[in-house]
Amino acid sequence: MTGRTFSFEDLFSSSIPSESGSRQAHPRSRYDFGVAYPDPDSLPLAELAEALRVGLEEKEGELALYPHPQGYLPLREYLSEKLTRDRKLSVSAEDIMLGEGSSQLNHMIIEALVDPGDVVLTEDFTYPGTLGFLRRFRADIRGVRCDSEGMLPDALEAVLRRALSEGRRVKLIYTIPTFQNPQGWVMSLERRKSVLELALCHGIPILEDDCYVDLRFEGEPVDSIASLNPEAVVYVGSFSKVIGPGMRLGYLAGSSQLLDRITAIRSGSGVSQFGALAVHRFALNGLDQHVAHINQILCNKRDAMLGALDKYFGSCFGSEVFWSRPAGGLFIWLSMPAGFDTARVAERAAKEGILFMPGVRLSPEGESGHNRARLCFGYNRPQEIIDGIACLSEVFQKDGVAAL
Amino acid sequence: MTGRTFSFEDLFSSSIPSESGSRQAHPRSRYDFGVAYPDPDSLPLAELAEALRVGLEEKEGELALYPHPQGYLPLREYLSEKLTRDRKLSVSAEDIMLGEGSSQLNHMIIEALVDPGDVVLTEDFTYPGTLGFLRRFRADIRGVRCDSEGMLPDALEAVLRRALSEGRRVKLIYTIPTFQNPQGWVMSLERRKSVLELALCHGIPILEDDCYVDLRFEGEPVDSIASLNPEAVVYVGSFSKVIGPGMRLGYLAGSSQLLDRITAIRSGSGVSQFGALAVHRFALNGLDQHVAHINQILCNKRDAMLGALDKYFGSCFGSEVFWSRPAGGLFIWLSMPAGFDTARVAERAAKEGILFMPGVRLSPEGESGHNRARLCFGYNRPQEIIDGIACLSEVFQKDGVAAL
Repeated sequence: MTGRTFSFEDLFSSSIPSESGSRQAHPRSRYDFGVAYPDPDSLPLAELAEALRVGLEEKEGELALYPHPQGYLPLREYLSEKLTRDRKLSVSAEDIMLGEGSSQLNHMIIEALVDPGDVVLTEDFTYPGTLGFLRRFRADIRGVRCDSEGMLPDALEAVLRRALSEGRRVKLIYTIPTFQNPQGWVMSLERRKSVLELALCHGIPILEDDCYVDLRFEGEPVDSIASLNPEAVVYVGSFSKVIGPGMRLGYLAGSSQLLDRITAIRSGSGVSQFGALAVHRFALNGLDQHVAHINQILCNKRDAMLGALDKYFGSCFGSEVFWSRPAGGLFIWLSMPAGFDTARVAERAAKEGILFMPGVRLSPEGESGHNRARLCFGYNRPQEIIDGIACLSEVFQKDGVAAL
Repeated sequence: MTGRTFSFEDLFSSSIPSESGSRQAHPRSRYDFGVAYPDPDSLPLAELAEALRVGLEEKEGELALYPHPQGYLPLREYLSEKLTRDRKLSVSAEDIMLGEGSSQLNHMIIEALVDPGDVVLTEDFTYPGTLGFLRRFRADIRGVRCDSEGMLPDALEAVLRRALSEGRRVKLIYTIPTFQNPQGWVMSLERRKSVLELALCHGIPILEDDCYVDLRFEGEPVDSIASLNPEAVVYVGSFSKVIGPGMRLGYLAGSSQLLDRITAIRSGSGVSQFGALAVHRFALNGLDQHVAHINQILCNKRDAMLGALDKYFGSCFGSEVFWSRPAGGLFIWLSMPAGFDTARVAERAAKEGILFMPGVRLSPEGESGHNRARLCFGYNRPQEIIDGIACLSEVFQKDGVAAL
């Protein structure tokens, strides 16, 4: 029987995608502007190990039990205080669910709402991970034009009305309102109110992905959209950017109606208590100080990248080239002259040891943004960032301009 | 906008269950024979904390990165050696995927294969968690009669032929061949070969849930079914029972065809590196010694429960009552006289501080096992087990016999 071959090919469910998922690790490179990593040198490793040791001592029976379906209660209590304080979002621990990163939670929310063909509205360029989940559930994804304050209400209304006039169901508005990925802007309070007003008018919930909000280098926070209506808005956050992506620990705050139903489709049986114990104890000991510390580092990295772009891109490509100047987060959004193909140049850049994300990968329809690129400034040190941008400018000059 | 009410009711996808999931923690009680907890007093807490400290020091950049989609490579390498050594299953790290407990992996495999109405075969009584996942994907679950060596090949063939004669697609055989939950037996090697032979004849894959295999108190291991054909058999294991359920760390070994496709439906983006780093380092330091230690403890607990059943059930209920004597695992399977309703008695027992699982909850069709009960011996100390079984006998005599 050992030798008998076997094929799963005809056995797969018709509900799953026909393509294979990628089983490759993210490629690594000398200049990694491709993935939204946090600063790797300031990970609180010793502090987390000590927090875990104390946490396990304090709660010695906890690992012997299966976690609460929504995750470790003391961490949810901490989050309810943090969200009330930082995001004006008054939620209790019962309204919060922990997840394997925010991605598991986004996945569950989309699965709970989207039937094939349902329309989901997003910003005109947005996080490719969420786009992947939306495509996996066969959503009809439609981007809404944005300016530097977020989705344009007129554009949102037009996209909405068109979908409805086509007889389509619009199931969700997905937004990253703070330090948007990749565009970097923060949606203004007025804009948040307008978007919510339109959503409420049409009975459409909003998924507010706020996973970069803690990474503010300057300026004042804007209230969360969820604080304006915690029933209609599902709020998702994460410890990935403030502690480390490898923790895989995110959180959701939403209406009990939604929590009841997503609990029924959860694929694991609750997030690891091991990580949750450590993060809870670490957070109590001083997450705020840690965040202040890493924001200083990230701010310097942003400035290094902005300076290098001025020097190596501003001078070479003229006035048709511009880029964002975000007040926080991890991204700079670069726009090259029309006709420039960043996807083509990305391959060449990778060979030179520089990774970045071509704009087209962040397009909901996969059709726009050919002349754009997302540059993450979290991973490399400032001098490396400067060297990497200098290098990238050379590649862009050689390959990209030739392609114009 | 804050006050405006919002309802998700008409927005949910038609593909998700219409019932809410339970958002309650497992109830806790003085005598907890209800949930398959491991021994809570021998959790290696200090060792795990130290393993994490060393692991983070050795791999200091690891937490800054997103994990490999299949999970932390060194832990998968450790598992490939362990499975080759313990289960005669020659697999490489590329054939292995880590999950949020074995439950996330079982969920993904079922989701990947089952269309509504597809038939899945299981043992005549089996793990309710998997039954829940099968129901969530609307499988037609059919139990196969077992004796003390596992599924009866004749019964399996009959169930298979009936399903096929009805024009149904049979997508999976789910089995817990070692220290079966709840029945406690180990499927014999001959039986494993017969079940596999039938599966191969009909082109049906087997899901081998081997999450209790390390908990052997006596006797010799039987080769895994997957070792007989690693293409057709998906093997799932877990650290929940040997380190702690709160870790939420399980693993799968299967064909690349299957791994390619389940990667595309994974809802998180890989298991926490934090837990994986600790478990890897701890396992290298001496998982085998730890397992030998906890097996000694669990064996004493099993003996305490068997002795108490002899004393308090054997004498009171006569020869119509019997129970299993497992060589490992966490369960004793109790059979009361026909007509006895354990589900009814369970409510009364809970009020007296004793939890157990009524047999009907482990029935694939939810229709048999009314006179049976699953008793877990992992959680309480031996004297508590004896006291609890004495108490349970009283409740059974009062309520149960009256109900006959």
